[in-house]
Amino acid sequence: MKTSQIKIVENILNANDQIAEENSRMLREHHIYSINIMASPGAGKTSLILKTIQGLSNDLHIAVIEGDTAPVTIDADKVQAQGIPAVQINTGGQCHLDAPMVRSGLAQLTLNELDLVIIENVGNLICPAAFKLGTNINVVVASIPEGDDKPYKYPNIYRGIDALILNKIDLRPYIEFNETYFKKGIEILNPGVRIFDLSCKTGIGLSAWTDWLKEKIVHFKNE
Amino acid sequence: MKTSQIKIVENILNANDQIAEENSRMLREHHIYSINIMASPGAGKTSLILKTIQGLSNDLHIAVIEGDTAPVTIDADKVQAQGIPAVQINTGGQCHLDAPMVRSGLAQLTLNELDLVIIENVGNLICPAAFKLGTNINVVVASIPEGDDKPYKYPNIYRGIDALILNKIDLRPYIEFNETYFKKGIEILNPGVRIFDLSCKTGIGLSAWTDWLKEKIVHFKNE
Repeated sequence: MKTSQIKIVENILNANDQIAEENSRMLREHHIYSINIMASPGAGKTSLILKTIQGLSNDLHIAVIEGDTAPVTIDADKVQAQGIPAVQINTGGQCHLDAPMVRSGLAQLTLNELDLVIIENVGNLICPAAFKLGTNINVVVASIPEGDDKPYKYPNIYRGIDALILNKIDLRPYIEFNETYFKKGIEILNPGVRIFDLSCKTGIGLSAWTDWLKEKIVHFKNE
Repeated sequence: MKTSQIKIVENILNANDQIAEENSRMLREHHIYSINIMASPGAGKTSLILKTIQGLSNDLHIAVIEGDTAPVTIDADKVQAQGIPAVQINTGGQCHLDAPMVRSGLAQLTLNELDLVIIENVGNLICPAAFKLGTNINVVVASIPEGDDKPYKYPNIYRGIDALILNKIDLRPYIEFNETYFKKGIEILNPGVRIFDLSCKTGIGLSAWTDWLKEKIVHFKNE
């Protein structure tokens, strides 16, 4: 990139971070905990969100913001079918959510009634890493079929996240996946990050994730 | 985006397309057929390339250009282990290959000795769609575990491609995947596009792909 182009990219990122700060402040003022869920296409972001809703919606009022590159409401429909408000954001082909998009999503929700907002980012292991949204935590969903070398190939997305979900562990018998190699890669990028092995399909491992999350939210509400 | 930003994006794309044209001309002058392989992370691009090499390297001299967002040579090493020249391009975090990167990759190959150059794009279902590289054909590798809704969610990548590989069909018994729904989505975006169902793991369906490709290359060489 030329210097003028780099300058514009820097300006976009700075402007994004300012709005991410505003999102964070607005959410905190309403005592709403928030999560940004990132992953490769098909790793299981929506499945994880649906299972998280099932695990937490007895105790908490939840809403979901769905980021999509196209004007489809497939994921938002699945969330709404569970009786949970969902806002769909069409990025118009753009490869990630940014803070202004999340701000416009939040404006469509009744914030006074909510305890938790889950944001499903666009399926992409690269671009979302650069754009803060203003959430309390950032989570990446990985999955067994993607392969054990992803932390080595797409390192930026794993840096600075607060939890890693390793989904689709029900497929372990059918796919070669060196878990030691995978987790060593994660540990190098993000020492001590909490990792949850689970299967949204069978439900195994899910309660460890929802219990951890519930504790985070209770702690936040009592701050 | 502001008008000034849109203008810069347009300029970048126009400059890219010009260099893609130059790449195309240079490859044709050397009678080299070329393929751009795009996919989500972990769909099986490298596996497909390794199997394609096994199927064609008796008859053709092949080289591979590997696009990675990080300075890792995992894929390039796998190709070189088969005795095939491989050039690794580190995009420095960028989410796609572009034509100038491919030009610099081609400059590292002995073009006079080659019949086929396979380019493995960065794992991403969004950004690579916008950047022509100058290849004869563009191919997307999809896979059963990614889910059947991907054409509806990431439509741009499937438009204008010349073939679609549906990989990991050995996992069909273990994963819900509505093939009719998936292929209807592809057909809407790209009517009549050639689809190859195969498994790089078991080898099933691979010869249909390599035979089709061989025919394309023979036709190109006789033009």
